Amino acid sequence: MRHRSIGIFDSGVGGLTVFKEIASLLPGENLIYLGDTARVPYGTKSVETVCRYALEAAEFLVDQGVKLLVVACNTASAVALPQLRERFQLPVIGVIEPGAKRAAKSLNRRIGVIGTEGTINSNRYPEAIHALLPDAKIFSAPCPLFVPLAEEGWAEHEVAKLAAKEYLQPLLTAQIDTLVLGCTHYPLLRNTLQTILGDTVDMVDSAEETAKAVQNLFQQQGLANPECGGQRTFFVTDVPTRFERVGRAFLRNNLGRVEQVQIG
Amino acid sequence: MRHRSIGIFDSGVGGLTVFKEIASLLPGENLIYLGDTARVPYGTKSVETVCRYALEAAEFLVDQGVKLLVVACNTASAVALPQLRERFQLPVIGVIEPGAKRAAKSLNRRIGVIGTEGTINSNRYPEAIHALLPDAKIFSAPCPLFVPLAEEGWAEHEVAKLAAKEYLQPLLTAQIDTLVLGCTHYPLLRNTLQTILGDTVDMVDSAEETAKAVQNLFQQQGLANPECGGQRTFFVTDVPTRFERVGRAFLRNNLGRVEQVQIG
Repeated sequence: MRHRSIGIFDSGVGGLTVFKEIASLLPGENLIYLGDTARVPYGTKSVETVCRYALEAAEFLVDQGVKLLVVACNTASAVALPQLRERFQLPVIGVIEPGAKRAAKSLNRRIGVIGTEGTINSNRYPEAIHALLPDAKIFSAPCPLFVPLAEEGWAEHEVAKLAAKEYLQPLLTAQIDTLVLGCTHYPLLRNTLQTILGDTVDMVDSAEETAKAVQNLFQQQGLANPECGGQRTFFVTDVPTRFERVGRAFLRNNLGRVEQVQIG
Repeated sequence: MRHRSIGIFDSGVGGLTVFKEIASLLPGENLIYLGDTARVPYGTKSVETVCRYALEAAEFLVDQGVKLLVVACNTASAVALPQLRERFQLPVIGVIEPGAKRAAKSLNRRIGVIGTEGTINSNRYPEAIHALLPDAKIFSAPCPLFVPLAEEGWAEHEVAKLAAKEYLQPLLTAQIDTLVLGCTHYPLLRNTLQTILGDTVDMVDSAEETAKAVQNLFQQQGLANPECGGQRTFFVTDVPTRFERVGRAFLRNNLGRVEQVQIG
């Protein structure tokens, strides 16, 4: 079992931020990544549709014989995790619980959450944070332009700064001390967001927290295999060209071979 | 035959700009609209994937017994029109030829074309314009942020103005006298674009030109039926909530009943 790969999926390139943190923390593990680029994005789609896509993506990875499923997409983690855990007989880690756990360390208990429409509408971050810190005040804001801004390579462009000012203004007014980056694309906008919020606001990067959660789970369950060879395999559901190009900005590295597959 | 409906499809809400112009020019015709909202957008996806989606969307409308197929999506028109015409035994109108015909009236023969990555990469607008005006100079620019800006309701927001300045600068420098709005979302940004380009640049709205092309075709082929009753029917492939909300801004009106269907 421990010799198997870790399966990671996202709607597209965003989950590469999670992939990168896992690869960095557990360099010897073999990783298989699936980006559902033929149907990206998930963040503007309904619960039913996202659940269907997530089950199909997970099934593909399970068929590859992975030992762990990482849902590297906030929207899919928000709406599909219970169904994935019910359907498949292997551990499933999403990005929301690890992010919420870290956010619950807020000192003033005023926490901002930003994400796609799907993630914010699901209310999963407030639920997960309140389970750990019942009197926390949560201020949520959907930021639909951040994904296209990151994919355009404009994460630090004036346009991104102006959009961020508009989206974050209510959170600034609310005097949050912690901001959850509730979408795997958002770590690319980290500098832009920090400039607007100032250094006193702690930014929670779900990608980092999720990688730590994977490490903890492996230690608990004896699943780690630091000597696997560190192979990285990428699958996408559309032609790989755009994924390879945009993915380089996410990994700050070339991806190597990316194979197109059909799922669903 | 002439008693049948007109079938119109797009990847999502964008094609409603085309729908609106057809409904306004031919108010008595029955219209059936399909938005492939479970797989939107098409503009960032590959030729193969967009062709597959367009064939599936068209098949759904053909099964409804329509007399004409309008491809109200620039990306699908750019890459899938020949396959659609080959597959189905009914007239098919896309949005590119009508827009190109109008653009070819440029006086200084310096024409800008803006659209999604898929539309610009296809090179279909330059090809169609050059067929009519061989010595035209075409300046193309993909504007990936315009679709999310329009869907966010930010078409006239400062963020849209700043993004438009960035995208249009090379076209301003090139001294174009005509700009093709090569994406069905872009008419919503018309005021913003006109402010940057000035009143001397003529904006070609594919939606208006396509509606005129439908009217011409009906006159030529005796397909018009001005007394059909003007029924409007909407289908989408994801849950209708978001389509209804965003669609109101496109139609400046409520849509009435929207039904979810599965295609493909």
